[in-house]
Amino acid sequence: MKYHRIPNETVRRLPIYLRGLVVLSQQGVNNVSSSKLADFVNINAGQIRKDFSFVGDFGTRGVGYDIDWLTKQIKKILRLDAEHRAAVIGVGNLGTAVMAYPGFRTYGFEIAAAFDSDPAKVGKKVKNVTVEDVSKLNSLAKRGVDMAIIAVPAEAAQNVADALVQAGIKGILNFSPKRITVPKNVKVITIDIATDLARLPYYIPSS
Amino acid sequence: MKYHRIPNETVRRLPIYLRGLVVLSQQGVNNVSSSKLADFVNINAGQIRKDFSFVGDFGTRGVGYDIDWLTKQIKKILRLDAEHRAAVIGVGNLGTAVMAYPGFRTYGFEIAAAFDSDPAKVGKKVKNVTVEDVSKLNSLAKRGVDMAIIAVPAEAAQNVADALVQAGIKGILNFSPKRITVPKNVKVITIDIATDLARLPYYIPSS
Repeated sequence: MKYHRIPNETVRRLPIYLRGLVVLSQQGVNNVSSSKLADFVNINAGQIRKDFSFVGDFGTRGVGYDIDWLTKQIKKILRLDAEHRAAVIGVGNLGTAVMAYPGFRTYGFEIAAAFDSDPAKVGKKVKNVTVEDVSKLNSLAKRGVDMAIIAVPAEAAQNVADALVQAGIKGILNFSPKRITVPKNVKVITIDIATDLARLPYYIPSS
Repeated sequence: MKYHRIPNETVRRLPIYLRGLVVLSQQGVNNVSSSKLADFVNINAGQIRKDFSFVGDFGTRGVGYDIDWLTKQIKKILRLDAEHRAAVIGVGNLGTAVMAYPGFRTYGFEIAAAFDSDPAKVGKKVKNVTVEDVSKLNSLAKRGVDMAIIAVPAEAAQNVADALVQAGIKGILNFSPKRITVPKNVKVITIDIATDLARLPYYIPSS
């Protein structure tokens, strides 16, 4: 089932709520008010209530939201109720850092494959995954990998994206600052570190 | 001058518009409609018009937005009309990748310093910056550095944040998935790769 009417901006925030709810649950908390969660995830309470109404949870006055139920519901909507396998393309500094990233388990992600074009890297193990040659990308879909993380230099990004599309990958996380073009049935999310850094000065008081 | 009434969500999108406007300008374009920019930056046109109204630009019917004027205005609001110097703390895979990141120049950022606690790294040059010992963090503010990028392991993040606050840094980009606590006058933006990856399955059609 797909919940078509959830705005993209809400979808962007759902994983943030989910991570907060998981941490609260680990602390033994069963219910949370929108204002407590607001402090915890740094998103305002009104926005949280609005977002949760899309999820189908309107909370209970004086009790708040049931963390267990809400966690399950968000996972279902985001399709995180199943495990997902991802491949990293480009095992340079960035790709290696991504493979070492400790935060994926929270969402049930496994980095199941890694690829590079450098013969010196192919065959080596990085975080328990053996690096394969990029020419082997076409085997991905058969291996149950449905997402790929592009961590290659900007000039190689489009070629890699084309190969991933060819291989049947439908979801791409792109770290290259270059725009990549894919067919409409493939989703690309671009992470641009500079864009995140660029809103920091706004909040820095001038001295 | 600070424009207090711009919502955080709009501030988050302004750098994305800015980057789009810079690229369009480089292509020789002078004016852009909200719908053309919408295609370009992948944010809907209504949202763009609303965001630009906060910037003080309501566009001209049939002409669109003046790219030059809008670029200057957004830079001014985001305080990107001056150069900013940033320090990277932690020169592992992630820190090195950040230092090599090509997208910072668009916003006038310079990675001016790098720090690590590993004696084997101190004194080495990474992307033309000599790595210094973390004990030297206290010199940062005097050197005109006003932003820091934390790329250390999760367990070291809070200590580094404390030292940065002590050194007078008012803006921090945090790559560690761990929450860090800072005084109210310091702004932290956290980049969690897993959170971005977590919204990808929502958009992947089930097979």
